Amino acid sequence: MEETPELGEADTATQDFLLQQTMLRIKDPLKSLTFYNKCLGMTLLLKLDFPYMKFSQYVLGYEDGKDIPEDVKEREAWAFSCKATVVLTHNWGSENDEKPFHNGNSEPLGFGHIGIAVPDIYAACKRFEQLGVKIVKKPNDGKIKGLAFIEDPDGYWIEIFSPDNMASIMTCTQ
Amino acid sequence: MEETPELGEADTATQDFLLQQTMLRIKDPLKSLTFYNKCLGMTLLLKLDFPYMKFSQYVLGYEDGKDIPEDVKEREAWAFSCKATVVLTHNWGSENDEKPFHNGNSEPLGFGHIGIAVPDIYAACKRFEQLGVKIVKKPNDGKIKGLAFIEDPDGYWIEIFSPDNMASIMTCTQ
Repeated sequence: MEETPELGEADTATQDFLLQQTMLRIKDPLKSLTFYNKCLGMTLLLKLDFPYMKFSQYVLGYEDGKDIPEDVKEREAWAFSCKATVVLTHNWGSENDEKPFHNGNSEPLGFGHIGIAVPDIYAACKRFEQLGVKIVKKPNDGKIKGLAFIEDPDGYWIEIFSPDNMASIMTCTQ
Repeated sequence: MEETPELGEADTATQDFLLQQTMLRIKDPLKSLTFYNKCLGMTLLLKLDFPYMKFSQYVLGYEDGKDIPEDVKEREAWAFSCKATVVLTHNWGSENDEKPFHNGNSEPLGFGHIGIAVPDIYAACKRFEQLGVKIVKKPNDGKIKGLAFIEDPDGYWIEIFSPDNMASIMTCTQ
């Protein structure tokens, strides 16, 4: 067991801070947007083009499309105030570089994955299989049961789990 | 300008999916927890030890500490149902490996950063400087003004921005 450092109350200067995004580089916007929208059920909240710097960004999240402001400027401010989005960055031309993006789970290690909570892990994974999603770990593979990993089109890992199962999963693995 | 792929409504099978976590490997729990708690204002929602597999995980997010259930099992289910958390993974002994973790922003490229929305980017960055946080890009450095990058103890980048500024930032850079 690792000792837990003593932590205090959050500094009031950090009030209203929110974890808004996780940014991942992508090779192919069509493939990635199709995956995050069709397979994972995220909505495209905002698309930004930066012709001057030759890149585009796609902000996706679990928001209701009806809440997206029509006005472009309002939409930008709104999208960047949504909690828990993925920002997919496409540097124009990076798709011509044959080297794939690095998912952080082989050397050099770093970033691990994003994780999506779903109501029913087994139903979710069955649907992913039917959609042809690459499954890294099926729910009942390995030591940790009831928890899966899938891959996005660039090979980034996405953990899939049901919050209500996590307590029993933890008990089995500790 | 990149063409935007046609996307549809989210499949009802993905209802209640939520983006729960971003997992990053860390070398030193004391340093990282101090940083995410004291500097960024996150609360430690859950600590998990997996002695069998020799790692610990720390789930942090912008939740009110008063909402954390006292019962351990309830706390686990609750923490994994919170949107927008960071899960810091400490593989025991990884701190003895001199090779630092890879932040994805040099070769091999991949993960970019997490991003935190703050009410006042200038006040937030002034405070980070006072706390001795490593600043990668000050708000007014470079082409994109009013947006900063800082580093966590393992060198992962954290974008800092104010949502209300994003619309004008975008106008200047497009």
